[in-house]
Amino acid sequence: MGARLGSNSYGKSRVRMLKVRRGADRHEVVEVTVAIALKGDFAAAHLKGDNAAVLPTDTMKNTVYTLGKGHGIETIESFALHLGTHFVGQDANVTAARVTIGEKLWRRVRTGDGEHPHAFISGGDERRWCEGAVTRTGVTIESGIDGLVLIKTTDSAFAGFKKDKYTTLKETDDRVLSTSVTARWAYRDARADFAPGREAIRRALIETFAGHKSASVQQTLYAMGERALAACSAIDSIRLSLPNRHYLLADLSPFGMSNENEVFVPTDEPHGLIEATVERT
Amino acid sequence: MGARLGSNSYGKSRVRMLKVRRGADRHEVVEVTVAIALKGDFAAAHLKGDNAAVLPTDTMKNTVYTLGKGHGIETIESFALHLGTHFVGQDANVTAARVTIGEKLWRRVRTGDGEHPHAFISGGDERRWCEGAVTRTGVTIESGIDGLVLIKTTDSAFAGFKKDKYTTLKETDDRVLSTSVTARWAYRDARADFAPGREAIRRALIETFAGHKSASVQQTLYAMGERALAACSAIDSIRLSLPNRHYLLADLSPFGMSNENEVFVPTDEPHGLIEATVERT
Amino acid sequence: MGARLGSNSYGKSRVRMLKVRRGADRHEVVEVTVAIALKGDFAAAHLKGDNAAVLPTDTMKNTVYTLGKGHGIETIESFALHLGTHFVGQDANVTAARVTIGEKLWRRVRTGDGEHPHAFISGGDERRWCEGAVTRTGVTIESGIDGLVLIKTTDSAFAGFKKDKYTTLKETDDRVLSTSVTARWAYRDARADFAPGREAIRRALIETFAGHKSASVQQTLYAMGERALAACSAIDSIRLSLPNRHYLLADLSPFGMSNENEVFVPTDEPHGLIEATVERT
Amino acid sequence: MGARLGSNSYGKSRVRMLKVRRGADRHEVVEVTVAIALKGDFAAAHLKGDNAAVLPTDTMKNTVYTLGKGHGIETIESFALHLGTHFVGQDANVTAARVTIGEKLWRRVRTGDGEHPHAFISGGDERRWCEGAVTRTGVTIESGIDGLVLIKTTDSAFAGFKKDKYTTLKETDDRVLSTSVTARWAYRDARADFAPGREAIRRALIETFAGHKSASVQQTLYAMGERALAACSAIDSIRLSLPNRHYLLADLSPFGMSNENEVFVPTDEPHGLIEATVERT
Repeated sequence: MGARLGSNSYGKSRVRMLKVRRGADRHEVVEVTVAIALKGDFAAAHLKGDNAAVLPTDTMKNTVYTLGKGHGIETIESFALHLGTHFVGQDANVTAARVTIGEKLWRRVRTGDGEHPHAFISGGDERRWCEGAVTRTGVTIESGIDGLVLIKTTDSAFAGFKKDKYTTLKETDDRVLSTSVTARWAYRDARADFAPGREAIRRALIETFAGHKSASVQQTLYAMGERALAACSAIDSIRLSLPNRHYLLADLSPFGMSNENEVFVPTDEPHGLIEATVERT
Repeated sequence: MGARLGSNSYGKSRVRMLKVRRGADRHEVVEVTVAIALKGDFAAAHLKGDNAAVLPTDTMKNTVYTLGKGHGIETIESFALHLGTHFVGQDANVTAARVTIGEKLWRRVRTGDGEHPHAFISGGDERRWCEGAVTRTGVTIESGIDGLVLIKTTDSAFAGFKKDKYTTLKETDDRVLSTSVTARWAYRDARADFAPGREAIRRALIETFAGHKSASVQQTLYAMGERALAACSAIDSIRLSLPNRHYLLADLSPFGMSNENEVFVPTDEPHGLIEATVERT
Repeated sequence: MGARLGSNSYGKSRVRMLKVRRGADRHEVVEVTVAIALKGDFAAAHLKGDNAAVLPTDTMKNTVYTLGKGHGIETIESFALHLGTHFVGQDANVTAARVTIGEKLWRRVRTGDGEHPHAFISGGDERRWCEGAVTRTGVTIESGIDGLVLIKTTDSAFAGFKKDKYTTLKETDDRVLSTSVTARWAYRDARADFAPGREAIRRALIETFAGHKSASVQQTLYAMGERALAACSAIDSIRLSLPNRHYLLADLSPFGMSNENEVFVPTDEPHGLIEATVERT
Repeated sequence: MGARLGSNSYGKSRVRMLKVRRGADRHEVVEVTVAIALKGDFAAAHLKGDNAAVLPTDTMKNTVYTLGKGHGIETIESFALHLGTHFVGQDANVTAARVTIGEKLWRRVRTGDGEHPHAFISGGDERRWCEGAVTRTGVTIESGIDGLVLIKTTDSAFAGFKKDKYTTLKETDDRVLSTSVTARWAYRDARADFAPGREAIRRALIETFAGHKSASVQQTLYAMGERALAACSAIDSIRLSLPNRHYLLADLSPFGMSNENEVFVPTDEPHGLIEATVERT
């Protein structure tokens, strides 16, 4: 029997960095978690234990910090492309670098005196996300949002659905709807204005979720995607992954009580999962 | 050899509930996770397998929903005491009920049209917390905050400390300081105004953390506690547990670069942990 | 501006089930977490809010339990294909069903009297994994392992690597090596003998990790993959994802002490990540 | 208004260490996570920002590694007491040191050639635990187990329980019982034989859980505690905390199917929680 090396990559994951931009009047913070993966000809390492082509992943970590020192990191997208370009540019053996960045959100503390110059409070679980891919022939950049958790307490229905012999779900014209949005979109041009694009897309997603008269998660997802495309002309498609975080109506009938959508049981599992790409025509 | 039953309790944990208050103009939401523990004479269950005195923990779950239906849950404290009083009041065998509640925060969505009537976005990891204890002779209520994550990028030092032969830490007059506040306070009177008390204490903790010229976590902790006591006359002491979430200055000297508090490595472990109670005199 | 629906799917995730096979002499347990995703023509739901083609995800959950009752679940692979075939077979609108199953491991309790007939202890974090895909034209089945955590305290080196100006890592001919194996392999034939195949592959991975004189994670990965292919003739390739769970040598030199690979600092982040497919030739 | 400092402590948590004992024929590994908390007169730090009495928590981390180098760590208990004695002994200002250690389990890899000399596989989520407290007048040591997850598929009932108007639970004479054992016991003498004591207690807990005809978690808990006391004469009491990890019988009646304890729905929440101390008489 023989074996050969197929598709492969290597790199460093979970490299965390806080960058402080120390302005005269106030500080800005950016906290990121970076993952780097390189492709190229690394067959000798796999097959012969010859590491001559292998830059240590520890060096990639050092590179995040050193390049992070010189770069403003106004957006995670620009920093991802900066890192990817570095790795492809300095090593002829590397054919592609993929740099993935998640950004933790910090909100500036407000006191009675207004915005504080250097204190911040956690922005919660929501994360900005991007992935830059740099090859010898070009660059692509995909952006996204993870963990944008939303809930609405009315204007959501689910009825008229298909039934088979295992269907017990009741139709409803009024339910709680909650999701944790994962969104991914690719910019047509890697020199796009990432920050306003992201902000417009995020606002479109939240406002559509809030305002939509929902007949299903599918319908709300599509409306959210359509509105996001309208809000940001720099992208041509958006992929949304929406878990249906079920809030079950508590059954109070054994106790002779009604429950007019007042008391719900939040559940983590099982959950529905609705995924689709909406594309510009 | 003989054995006997010592201190014991039983109950239901992680009972989750969303309560929607459906006002004419807009909805309010409260999402809680409740734990109930009862004490009393449950020796027969342990020693003889006789369950006659054991109300099922499943019933406690049902009770959260049924009492949650009738109760406004304006504050988690009032609901905790309501539940505790129910369990002690209906069963002569129960001598004490402890009800612990954590509250997830939801913030109302704002759109271009102002506050949305029924859509909300997650308030992150921070949790309101309380524990009500009801016995035959009285009630006590303790409140708190979990997971209030703060960071400041200057006005924090640590110098002049004790050294032994294993000390390698350098003194610093300027570092990043970050913590995740856990706070606990007991109200003198179980009929206190819980909501404004909580809000005043929380604001005092955040503003003091932000504004304090810190010589150590210990000093900042004490200042935060002192200010919280001043902000809320209904409490006599506050306990603070402050992990020192170290942001380590990245060492760029091997690369011939300085690092004037610009690039830091966030770490989860190991972490310092400073805990103290501050009391009113 | 116009929009259209692109690639989409929907289904139920995190459906948990314990199946007990109650034999005359002893019980067997299988605990699984199932995710189902269907593809087909669901445009009406997205575009018009017409749910006539949408079988509720709640029904998918019910189907796991009802089909789980009738099926022996000797392997998760056979159950995944059984579920997928059901969803494609009963609904002409469904063009593809993907069923993903993770299996928690339970080990039988052994007492002084031998194997216990109906008591089990958790097998830890390691999970069996599979994904069956059923379409109108055929079925495919991929199997795998998640969370197989291994460590070796010698016979691992990393030297002779590429260096650039950001490289500070020291070469070493003796280090601790630890990883958490994620493995994926596809069977050539969906009627393969899944259980012995899985067992042979798992044993090959563990024994090769243990016995290999490692010049790098890359080399060990390739050796593991090669040996797995040799151990199971029913597969043609295997993909391995090996995080390098760094155990850093504690620097005791500030205290005048040597550290001959005795004291290490386990770290979760950052971590290397080496990924490759090994293919049969 | 005045304030004063109440009860306080400080220290380092989540200090992780792997100790390798490199024998001639084979290696042994011990992986621990250590937390240290010191008490003493630290008022000046809190009140005046005077750190002269404050040994940095970073030094405590260094101390774990340096003392870990010299100590065999045959048991976590002996290492906890060794660390605690160090901190109290070297600093007259420290009145008490509490050292808490959790130990991850590694099992030696077995191959066709027998036990491997230096490769190990994760022992899962179960943790050994201990807490040593050293003061100027004495030492105490408490040991325990965390995360010992067990399940049995029969010989468990719950019937004859108290009912109120919110009770809907059905009585059962045959159910699945699963728990995650947390156990704590204190040795009468801090020079006890920790390893065999721990092993005897653990075996008693598992065998009793497996073999007991359970009328309730309470009854099984008591039997487990009683048997543990019998198994280890060096302790006088044991505290057990047993969540009731409910496996709910799937309701297949809507589909015209019976379910004779074959198909269950594992749930994480809500869960019962039964806690008691069993004492030697």
